[in-house]
Amino acid sequence: MANERVAVLGGTGPLGRGLGRRLALAGYEVVVGSRDAARAAAVADALRAATGMTIAGAENATALDGAAICVLAIPADGVETMLAALRPRLAGTLVVDVVVPLAMRDGVVEHAPPPGERSAGEMIQRLLPESTVVSAFKTVPAAVLDGPGATVEGDVLISGDDAGARARVATLVERIPALRAIDAGALRTVRAVEGITALLVNLNRRHHARTAVRILGL
Amino acid sequence: MANERVAVLGGTGPLGRGLGRRLALAGYEVVVGSRDAARAAAVADALRAATGMTIAGAENATALDGAAICVLAIPADGVETMLAALRPRLAGTLVVDVVVPLAMRDGVVEHAPPPGERSAGEMIQRLLPESTVVSAFKTVPAAVLDGPGATVEGDVLISGDDAGARARVATLVERIPALRAIDAGALRTVRAVEGITALLVNLNRRHHARTAVRILGL
Repeated sequence: MANERVAVLGGTGPLGRGLGRRLALAGYEVVVGSRDAARAAAVADALRAATGMTIAGAENATALDGAAICVLAIPADGVETMLAALRPRLAGTLVVDVVVPLAMRDGVVEHAPPPGERSAGEMIQRLLPESTVVSAFKTVPAAVLDGPGATVEGDVLISGDDAGARARVATLVERIPALRAIDAGALRTVRAVEGITALLVNLNRRHHARTAVRILGL
Repeated sequence: MANERVAVLGGTGPLGRGLGRRLALAGYEVVVGSRDAARAAAVADALRAATGMTIAGAENATALDGAAICVLAIPADGVETMLAALRPRLAGTLVVDVVVPLAMRDGVVEHAPPPGERSAGEMIQRLLPESTVVSAFKTVPAAVLDGPGATVEGDVLISGDDAGARARVATLVERIPALRAIDAGALRTVRAVEGITALLVNLNRRHHARTAVRILGL
């Protein structure tokens, strides 16, 4: 388990880089994936230098070689095209979706899944029918994950239709210090979780903060 | 301010009763409203006996007499009919909306505003164009509010298009011990807040808990 390989696709963006850093520090063998192999290698080098942990970089499809878990940290508007290409490579893989589609309307950041969709998590599961998709990490601030010494604090709501897969992701979450995993149940619960992301981004703008969320009473 | 009169319409339901109790303890002059005047009087009597505070009961329209603030705690499916009748009485009044439309689908509780609507808060503002609507208290567990000695803990997200009205509601929230008011901004942000309610209800069912929410980083 400790040496499990995790590919972080879109691992050069803020959230992907932060998750790569934290998962490497937690003992996972991390491969940073990017459309651009050179950019992936550069981010991997920087994270390796900063953490002293095992981190490689590769083009997205190559990054999946030998990976037990794929973290999908690509921008929301690139999901459909990218997953059409990667679907065969991702068959049978546990996919951790951290995508949140957001849009700004009249000064308010809103949860904005594509027309006909209710959430990124459900869309990704539909695009990857041979994979098990679990949504997580959607309410953790990227900037805090990617900070070198900062403590990441907050609850990670975990949504997915496969209870065993949710449990695997909960284990992964809780190997990151100060994060707590909360089993939210069926994948559809991610609709509300992605709404929380929009709310937190609005709070960040309004209050000049980096917010996360905690569920009281659990 | 301390003697401001607050009408709690739907004040005999769990959330309305809990808010009536807490607002009375906070020093507000509370009038419990119900479609049934006798039932309103009975709940007011019980709350008055339990708290020793000033609490009256009346039929909904009568409960609004002299009220500076109206808390709307009626069931989601009764909103349209009731507000059509009360709209003239509510003109110029600050309306605190605590309504959350929920529905159960395939074992998951979902945020379920009526067709064409995005949230109860926005619908209520549309139905009451001469009132100022502020949504609040949507993530506070009714059962905890209505418990006699229990501490109510959690953040209350406040959404509304009028900044002054949001500030008035924040004052009201923070007169209830251990609740913190968070200004979420425009009324549309209540969409995400009502989604949180659905998520919390699911967590309550899954984990046999009474959950509330806290925003970290503020």
